[in-house]
Amino acid sequence: MTESARTAEPARTTETVIPVVERILSANDRVAGANRQRLDASRVLTLNVMASPGAGKTSVILHTLRALAGRARMAVVEGDTAPVTIDSEKVAALGVPVVQVNTGGACHLDAEMMSNAFDQLPLDRVDLVIVENVGNLICPAGFKLGTHVNVLIASLPEGDDKPWKYPKMYRGVDVLLVNKTDLAPYVDFDMTNFRRGVEALNPGVVTFPVSCRTGDGLGAWTDWLAAKLPR
Amino acid sequence: MTESARTAEPARTTETVIPVVERILSANDRVAGANRQRLDASRVLTLNVMASPGAGKTSVILHTLRALAGRARMAVVEGDTAPVTIDSEKVAALGVPVVQVNTGGACHLDAEMMSNAFDQLPLDRVDLVIVENVGNLICPAGFKLGTHVNVLIASLPEGDDKPWKYPKMYRGVDVLLVNKTDLAPYVDFDMTNFRRGVEALNPGVVTFPVSCRTGDGLGAWTDWLAAKLPR
Repeated sequence: MTESARTAEPARTTETVIPVVERILSANDRVAGANRQRLDASRVLTLNVMASPGAGKTSVILHTLRALAGRARMAVVEGDTAPVTIDSEKVAALGVPVVQVNTGGACHLDAEMMSNAFDQLPLDRVDLVIVENVGNLICPAGFKLGTHVNVLIASLPEGDDKPWKYPKMYRGVDVLLVNKTDLAPYVDFDMTNFRRGVEALNPGVVTFPVSCRTGDGLGAWTDWLAAKLPR
Repeated sequence: MTESARTAEPARTTETVIPVVERILSANDRVAGANRQRLDASRVLTLNVMASPGAGKTSVILHTLRALAGRARMAVVEGDTAPVTIDSEKVAALGVPVVQVNTGGACHLDAEMMSNAFDQLPLDRVDLVIVENVGNLICPAGFKLGTHVNVLIASLPEGDDKPWKYPKMYRGVDVLLVNKTDLAPYVDFDMTNFRRGVEALNPGVVTFPVSCRTGDGLGAWTDWLAAKLPR
């Protein structure tokens, strides 16, 4: 049986296995895999930044671009459900190449959209591409893009129960920024309960409490990111 | 031609129109229509409460239940993408009937889920059913539930650009609560820009600035809602 599996003529057991593999590797996963190969060949580090609407994705990205200016050649992909360029214009104002992806109402970016976006970027002359996903704590978690690091931005006003309510998102991230720490005195946010939720879903996940308003904690984040850059 | 359209025997032009109508009335819309008939037959007012994660849906609902206690017989349907009962327990603690709908990871409630939820409620002995949709500014806007009033809760920390970024949601709502006004001194939220976006999408939409933390503005909201109750 094991011998026949290695022959060019597949045995019946091999034939029953193949369709299962096909179903697991969805079309999106295949394109994501191709994206990853292409990014690795160009030695580009890529981030998939996800969050609720208004948690601070764009603010974190703008801060990161400013902090790493001169240390890395960077580009940004801005995902929006509507045809607006509010965030792209802020990135372009820093002189950073930016590609706008309008999902046409869809609630997440997917690997095909990213493949098209990467076509527009000079990947061989870039060290870091930051992808800002659509503001949504649910759907983006279900679609691999081929990017390297999944970044989630939580924020204090959202409340400390969000890990329990959006477990798929919290489970799948590589690094967590907890933004708007400057609002701690004015909102009911129990950091102990929040961390309990995070640890239950994603034990030991790298976490940075930050405030884009005061700048607190952002240096630790950008240092961590800089250490991951190619070379 | 116009005469033949009124006869029992349909003319050819009528036959070509029907398939188009079928495509517009999706399966979800058909179930939503049936839900509405059932709710109207029971003389129940129903709200579909939508918002970003953490904008304050549950807080507004709990306040509304307390404010209208004794004035209306109420029930709640709690929609969650994960199998958690955090919000349902808060409603149940007030002695209000509550049905939990777990979407199994899906990013919105739909009419079929609501039909099943309404089966669990004593509709003939209720005046108001408040449905808390899944925390998401995109997908819930695309699925009618058969409910009467679409309620959107925005919040100051989300930022004033949200109408421009999530136009489909803002376009489809009947009433807008702008929550967390107590945070105005601590966040960058330009109410003029926000209202400009809202007016461009949904001119004249009824709007209540509120704070669930201080209670400011909530009386105006519950008075407005009470005036809509049956009888």
